[in-house]
Amino acid sequence: MPYSTLQNLCIVMVETSHPGNIGSAARAMKTMGIRDLRLVSPRKPYSQETWALASGANDIVEQAKITPSLPEALADCQYVIGASARSERTLQWPQLDARECGQHVAQHLAQQKIALVFGRERTGLSNEELEHCNALVHIPMAFDYLSLNIAMAVQVLSYECAMAARQAITVPAASEEGEELANAQAMEGFYVHLEQSLIDVRFLDPENPRLLMRRLRRLFGRAGVTVSEMNILRGMLAAFGGSKFRERA
Amino acid sequence: MPYSTLQNLCIVMVETSHPGNIGSAARAMKTMGIRDLRLVSPRKPYSQETWALASGANDIVEQAKITPSLPEALADCQYVIGASARSERTLQWPQLDARECGQHVAQHLAQQKIALVFGRERTGLSNEELEHCNALVHIPMAFDYLSLNIAMAVQVLSYECAMAARQAITVPAASEEGEELANAQAMEGFYVHLEQSLIDVRFLDPENPRLLMRRLRRLFGRAGVTVSEMNILRGMLAAFGGSKFRERA
Repeated sequence: MPYSTLQNLCIVMVETSHPGNIGSAARAMKTMGIRDLRLVSPRKPYSQETWALASGANDIVEQAKITPSLPEALADCQYVIGASARSERTLQWPQLDARECGQHVAQHLAQQKIALVFGRERTGLSNEELEHCNALVHIPMAFDYLSLNIAMAVQVLSYECAMAARQAITVPAASEEGEELANAQAMEGFYVHLEQSLIDVRFLDPENPRLLMRRLRRLFGRAGVTVSEMNILRGMLAAFGGSKFRERA
Repeated sequence: MPYSTLQNLCIVMVETSHPGNIGSAARAMKTMGIRDLRLVSPRKPYSQETWALASGANDIVEQAKITPSLPEALADCQYVIGASARSERTLQWPQLDARECGQHVAQHLAQQKIALVFGRERTGLSNEELEHCNALVHIPMAFDYLSLNIAMAVQVLSYECAMAARQAITVPAASEEGEELANAQAMEGFYVHLEQSLIDVRFLDPENPRLLMRRLRRLFGRAGVTVSEMNILRGMLAAFGGSKFRERA
């Protein structure tokens, strides 16, 4: 079972317009041994094309989890990689090419749940959705003006993950970090707490808040915060917040 | 022009049943910088689906050469690689996996014209057609009973050829993050500030301080803090520290 480790990998498709692309993506995943498909408010219901293109992967579509928003789809995920059509789109996130993405996934999948997130067919992921990502992946292409079909992108990235997982097994993988990472839900709770604390001490202006929190998300997202580190960070925020009441008393 | 060498590579599709697959394959090729498509007696004429799926790659379809038989399509090719759904199909030909195929193509393309041949959607290449191949390529999959859609297979193999060609040419590596990292001196100044702030709010006990700071160092060290992020972190600490004086006043 060379692909069994891929059970910790999920594919998330955000607001997909063409139901056929969901079927094609399901088949692409399954050929590579990936089974966990999550759909964030798909624009149309499944069609005949969905099932025709899914071919032998109907079970993947039937078991797909549908959520109204991205954070709900990512709640149990510890590392989130967003697919980006262009490599130069932003310098704000660590950038992986498809091969590096496969290697990252294969190295870390035993310890954490990883999501690969694919945006809308035409417009990709919104800036707000990108903020939930720890890293971005792009598939190197010959042109900037012509991108891969979304199911094709799912195929290439699934293929790279499966290839890397296959190679990682022949060489017994050393776990570089023993400890479990905080999941996306815990990270979101931390960001809310942090934002409120920064507003309380007037470091963050709620009238113009966006850039600061995005930069802090990027910093902590890059680090990969473990569960026990999260406890420390929450404790620090509580202590910083508590000080003003203590001093007042 | 990292992909210019791929002009010596052609994709041959034999008796394709679904005109949509030809359009998808054309787009898959073009995204990877491959332009020479050859069709051996396609079963149906181009359809609306062909053009819809070709998207920005209509030119590839328009310029595709159509021949009645495989030998005519291969006339000017010096090395022919046939796509095979199963790796164990035959021992009569040298077997490559997708990555090895890309490497072979990148190594030999400057000296020879190479064809990648894809058979019918359901039945692949006939034994007689296989006789025209110098080697076979397969894409490693999780299951034997579920194969990739033909356009997906074109995508994966085109991708592997383009990646190998790119690596064969490019060497000078770009810096992965544009922004400068904070130097060790700045990091040390931050840790001193952080430690004092945590002592001030009684989160850190100076009698037993070691483990906490070590863990925070590990967290921020792992992230790699940039110069501008360091400014934010120092500002946050000043704000958290300042609040107690503000409240006291």
